Amino acid sequence: MYFYRLSTVHGSFHHVSVNGSLYPAKTKSRRQRWEVKPSEMANNTLNPIRAIVDGMKLSPNPDKPMIALSIGDPTVFGNLPTDEAVLQAMRDAVDSQKFNGYAPSVGYLKSREAVANFYSCSQAPLEADDVILTSGCSQAIDLAISVLCNPGDNILVPCPGFSLYKTLAVSMGIEVKLYNLLPEKSWEIDLQHLESLIDERTSCLIVTNPSNPCGSVFTKEHLQKIIKVASRHCVPILADEIYGDMVSCDCPSMASLSSDVPILSCGGLAKRWLVPGWRMGWILIHDRNDVFGSEIRQGLMKLTQRILGACSIVQGALESILNNTPQSFYNSTIRFLKSNSEICFSELSTVPGLNPVMPSGAMYLMVGIDMDHFPDFKNDVDFTERLVTEQSVFCLPASAFEYPNFFRIVVTVPEEMMVEACARIREFCQRYYRPSSCDSNDLDQ
Amino acid sequence: MYFYRLSTVHGSFHHVSVNGSLYPAKTKSRRQRWEVKPSEMANNTLNPIRAIVDGMKLSPNPDKPMIALSIGDPTVFGNLPTDEAVLQAMRDAVDSQKFNGYAPSVGYLKSREAVANFYSCSQAPLEADDVILTSGCSQAIDLAISVLCNPGDNILVPCPGFSLYKTLAVSMGIEVKLYNLLPEKSWEIDLQHLESLIDERTSCLIVTNPSNPCGSVFTKEHLQKIIKVASRHCVPILADEIYGDMVSCDCPSMASLSSDVPILSCGGLAKRWLVPGWRMGWILIHDRNDVFGSEIRQGLMKLTQRILGACSIVQGALESILNNTPQSFYNSTIRFLKSNSEICFSELSTVPGLNPVMPSGAMYLMVGIDMDHFPDFKNDVDFTERLVTEQSVFCLPASAFEYPNFFRIVVTVPEEMMVEACARIREFCQRYYRPSSCDSNDLDQ
Repeated sequence: MYFYRLSTVHGSFHHVSVNGSLYPAKTKSRRQRWEVKPSEMANNTLNPIRAIVDGMKLSPNPDKPMIALSIGDPTVFGNLPTDEAVLQAMRDAVDSQKFNGYAPSVGYLKSREAVANFYSCSQAPLEADDVILTSGCSQAIDLAISVLCNPGDNILVPCPGFSLYKTLAVSMGIEVKLYNLLPEKSWEIDLQHLESLIDERTSCLIVTNPSNPCGSVFTKEHLQKIIKVASRHCVPILADEIYGDMVSCDCPSMASLSSDVPILSCGGLAKRWLVPGWRMGWILIHDRNDVFGSEIRQGLMKLTQRILGACSIVQGALESILNNTPQSFYNSTIRFLKSNSEICFSELSTVPGLNPVMPSGAMYLMVGIDMDHFPDFKNDVDFTERLVTEQSVFCLPASAFEYPNFFRIVVTVPEEMMVEACARIREFCQRYYRPSSCDSNDLDQ
Repeated sequence: MYFYRLSTVHGSFHHVSVNGSLYPAKTKSRRQRWEVKPSEMANNTLNPIRAIVDGMKLSPNPDKPMIALSIGDPTVFGNLPTDEAVLQAMRDAVDSQKFNGYAPSVGYLKSREAVANFYSCSQAPLEADDVILTSGCSQAIDLAISVLCNPGDNILVPCPGFSLYKTLAVSMGIEVKLYNLLPEKSWEIDLQHLESLIDERTSCLIVTNPSNPCGSVFTKEHLQKIIKVASRHCVPILADEIYGDMVSCDCPSMASLSSDVPILSCGGLAKRWLVPGWRMGWILIHDRNDVFGSEIRQGLMKLTQRILGACSIVQGALESILNNTPQSFYNSTIRFLKSNSEICFSELSTVPGLNPVMPSGAMYLMVGIDMDHFPDFKNDVDFTERLVTEQSVFCLPASAFEYPNFFRIVVTVPEEMMVEACARIREFCQRYYRPSSCDSNDLDQ
C-alpha cells in the first residue's frame, strides 16, 4: 500500500507531452510500480478449521498407525461406499449424452421435480419451482445468506457450529452472532440467549439440524420453540438440513413445523448418499405464508446466474438417484453410524476427565474435556495435538467451532479403528488425568 | 422498508415487563412485521442477456420451424457430440469409486498436474500449484475478479463483450469501464481508448481471446501491444481464454507473451471438449515476475474454500480427458466451425444492409446492421424480434453485449440450418431494406 501511494504521488509531478491521442493521458493517476494485493474479501475469507489445524504440530507417533477421527468425509476409509444404484444413475447419465450442455441456472426442471417429490410432505408441500439446485450444500448456504443479508446485517449462528456460515458471512461484511447450544441438554438451543441476540439488523437465523459438530437432533417440541422465536421477531430461517434423515430417531424438517416463518432448507447428496465430492446441493424454498413472495425467489434466481450450479451429469442422474436408491442402503448407513457412536460413547464415558455427549444423528460425537483435570494442557488444541504426538489419533479441537475444551470425533471410521482409537484415547487420558485441579496445580507449580 | 421502519419505531414505545431472563429483552429493536427483502447484491446481480431477451416478444412464424442462432451452447443440436474418450474417462471415474469424497478446495493434485502439463509451454511454464480447478469457467472468472478487486475499484472490460464480467463486478460494487473493440480492424482493441480509461483504481484488465461475441482472434503483435499497456500501468490481466485453441489460425496464449504482467488465465472443458454443463473450469496463474507473490495465490486459495469447486467425478476424469482425447476430435470441431462461419459470412456479405465480420475462432459471428437502411426498425432488438416473428430465426441482439446495431450468430448449428437461416435473413432484409436513409425516411413519414 505504501509503495503504491508513493508512486502515484510521484506520478502527479511528472510532466507529459501531449500525445496527439483522442483520449487524454491520465498521467497523474498512472501506477508506476506493481502493487497487486488480494481484495479485502479474499483476506476476510477465513477458515477457522484451517487456521487452527494449520497451526498445530501434527507429528504422529511413528510406532502407531495414524487414525484420523477429524475428517468430515464419510468416504475416506472406503467402508461406506455409495450405493450401486447411485453409480448406475451416473453411468446412465453419461451414456445418455443428454446432459452435456448447460442446464438452467437453477437446475434441470426434471431434477428439481424429483427433489420436490422426494422432500414434499403434506405439512410442507414442494413443487419444482421451490427447488434450486446448487454446487454442493455450500453454495446453497452461500446463496441463502447472500439473498437474505446485506453488509451490516447480522445472522444468528449456533455455537458450536459449522464454520462455513461465519466464513461466508464475514467475507460479505455480515456480522455473526453466536447463540449457545447446551451440551447438558443434548445440545438444545439456549432459547433465551438466542432471543436476546435478535435486533432489527438480524436478517437470518441459521439452524443446523442434525448438528455438525454435535451430532444432536432436536425434538419436534424444541423445533417448534425455535420457530416461535423466529416468528415472534419476524426472522427467516436458514435450515441447514444436510444431515436430515441421517438419524437414529425422529427428525422432522423445520418446514414441516412452520406455518408462518419462511424457511430456506439447504441440503444435498453429500452425506446421505455418501458422495460429498459430487457437489450436488439444493435449496428448498418453504414460504407458505408468502413472506418471501416473488422477490426472494427472483433474488435467488439472479444469484444462480453468477456461476451456474451443479454438474449437469449429476443433475441428470439425480432423479434416478433419489428414486432408485434402496431403503436398505440408508438403513445400513444409519445402523453403522449408530453402532459406532454407541461404541465410542460407551468407551469414552468411562474415561476419566472426558464427557462425551451421545449423538442421535449426523456422523459426529462431541467430547468435553475437564481441563481442570488435565493441567498438562493449555486447552483443547494443545490436548488434541499431544494426542496425535503420543497416540497417533487426531480429533478436531472444538475451538475450530468456537467451542473450546471439547473435541469432535467423526464416527464414520471402520469399527476396529474406532475401538482402537478409543483405547488409545483412554491410555492418553489415564496418563495425564489428575484427580483434582488443586492438587494437580500444586504438583505442577 | 417503510413498514419495517414503522414497526420498529412503534416497538420502541412498547412497555415490556421484566422477564426474569438472564438476557435483557431488546424490545425496542424487535421487528413486528414480516419484511424480508432480497439483498442489494441479489438486486444488483443483473444479467443483460436475460434482461433484453425476456423483454422481447418472441413469437415465431408458425409456418416456419424455429432456428435459434442465439444459444451459446454447442451441444443443443446434437451435431457436435463430445468425444468417446471424454465419456469413457467419466465412466472410469465413476467406476473407480475413488472420486466420491471431497477433493481439496483447489482441486485434486493429479488433476491440476494434468492441466499444468497440458497448458505448459516453454515461454509460460506451469506447475500443479499454478492451477486452481473451479466450478466452470464462470467460477474461475468470479474468483479472479474477487481476489483482485475491491468495491470502488474498476475493471476494464471489452465492448462488445461477454456479459458475465459486468454481472459479477456490479454485484460486488466494482465499476466496469468498457473499452472499445474495432469491427473494422477485426475487433482489435482500441488501445488508445483502453489506455485512457486506466486510473489508480483500475485493478484488472479483462481480455477475452478468442472473443465471445465477436469470434475474433488477436494477432501475436496485437496481444503484445495489449500487454505493453498493462505493463506501463501495472495492471494485471484476467485472460478469458475459454475458447483458446478453438481457432482456425494461430492463437498464442497471453501468458506466453508476457514477461512481467501477471496473468490469471481462465479456461475449462466447456467449449473445446463440448461439455459446458459439466462445470469444469480452471485458473492458470502466470506470474513469472513474481508480482502476485504468494499473497494472491493464498487469496485465491482462501476464496476456493467458500463453496469448493468442480464435481469430483469430472476432476477424476480430467487427466484422462486431457491426455486421451484424439487430436482428430479437436480438428473436426474446428473444421466444422470454420466451414459454417464461411457459409454464414459469404451468404450474409451479399445481403443488403448487413455487414458480417468474418471470425477466426470461438463459435460466433457478429453482423452489423446499417440501421439507416432499415427505417422500419428502431434498433437491433426491434430488428431481431421481427426476424423471429416473420422468419422464425433468432439471433441475439448485440445490445445484450452493450453493442447496439449488431447481432450475434452462433455458428454451431447444423450446416443445413445455417444455410436456411441465412436465406431467411436475406429474405427479411430484402423486404425491409431501403436504398438510402433519406429516401426511406421520406417514404415512411
